[in-house]
This record gives sequence, C-alpha cells and structure tokens, in this order.
Amino acid sequence: MKEYLENINKAFESKARLGIMSILVVNESVDFVTLKNLLDLTDGNLASHTRSLEELGYIQCQKQFIGRRPNTTFSVTQKGREAFAKHLNALEEFLKNQNI
Amino acid sequence: MKEYLENINKAFESKARLGIMSILVVNESVDFVTLKNLLDLTDGNLASHTRSLEELGYIQCQKQFIGRRPNTTFSVTQKGREAFAKHLNALEEFLKNQNI
Repeated sequence: MKEYLENINKAFESKARLGIMSILVVNESVDFVTLKNLLDLTDGNLASHTRSLEELGYIQCQKQFIGRRPNTTFSVTQKGREAFAKHLNALEEFLKNQNI
Repeated sequence: MKEYLENINKAFESKARLGIMSILVVNESVDFVTLKNLLDLTDGNLASHTRSLEELGYIQCQKQFIGRRPNTTFSVTQKGREAFAKHLNALEEFLKNQNI
C-alpha cells in the first residue's frame, strides 16, 4: 500500500466513525441520543458503529438509569484517543501528498 | 450531520478508494495491474472499487489488446477530478476542526 496511505485506520474510514470520534475526543462523555442527533444517524447505524469501536477498545460504553429511564453514554479510551490522533495525522500526510 | 463532515464523499471513504483516486488524478491513465500492485489490493477488491467509481462517473475504463493480451486501463473523469478535490477540501476542513 502506498506509504502515505499506510497509517490510515480502516476503523475510522467512514464519515460516521469520523464524526463519533471527533465528538468524543472533545467531550468527557456523550449520550446515545445526542450523538445520534448530531450525526443524523439511525439508532441501528449508530449502535453498530459504536459496538465496533467498543470491540476495538477505542470507546467505552456506560449504561445507567436516570430516574426510571435507561441511559447510554460513550467516552473515548486512551487507546482510542491515540489511534484517532494517528489516523488524523495519516489523513494530513495523505493530503500533503495531494499538494492540498 | 455536523457541517464539517457534510462534504465528505462516501464514495471516497475507504483507503482503497483514496488510493485509486490519488493515483489516477496525477496520471493520464493507469493499468489494472499497476494499480493493484501500488495499492496491494486483490483483483476482486480492485475490480469492485473501480466498478463503483465508474458507475458514479468518477473514472472511466478503457479495454484494449496489447498484442494478444487484453489490457485494462483507468483514467479519472472531469466529474471525478472535481468530486475528489471537493472531498480532499472537506477532509482538510474536518482536520482543521480537530485543531490538527
């Protein structure tokens, strides 16, 4: 693979994943509904993206009750923060190669 | 969807698609085997990516014989060139938003 593409992380390829990570890295934690609305995603779509990112250890999920209602929040892990920073640098390297 | 994600084009999301387009925009045309080797892709993988990009009108495919052997080459269309430039600008906008 061309070197400047090498460090682009497949886990962050899609617009939705970029969106989820870019929101979580600048927030302590964000709940499901807020993420869904910010990114115009369906429940199912957001659930599958967050589950994959969780399985990769890039985000963690907290489930609690607020009053009688279940509430799910997500936060980025240190591993996720580092992997995302590396991905953003790789995107920047890629763009530099396109003389942007 | 967050504005700075808006213009990111799903057609160019994957590493392979970024690779194909970034090679084609700086070459008159590139043949299948060269693309495959440059990007470490399988025949099937490259064929499916190029077919999608072709269906979107972003690249075109030329098939000819060189001696007795069939040869397939790809080149970027004006529509593809413009869409890819817009995508790269959107990635740059996105990165700016991450204070990279």
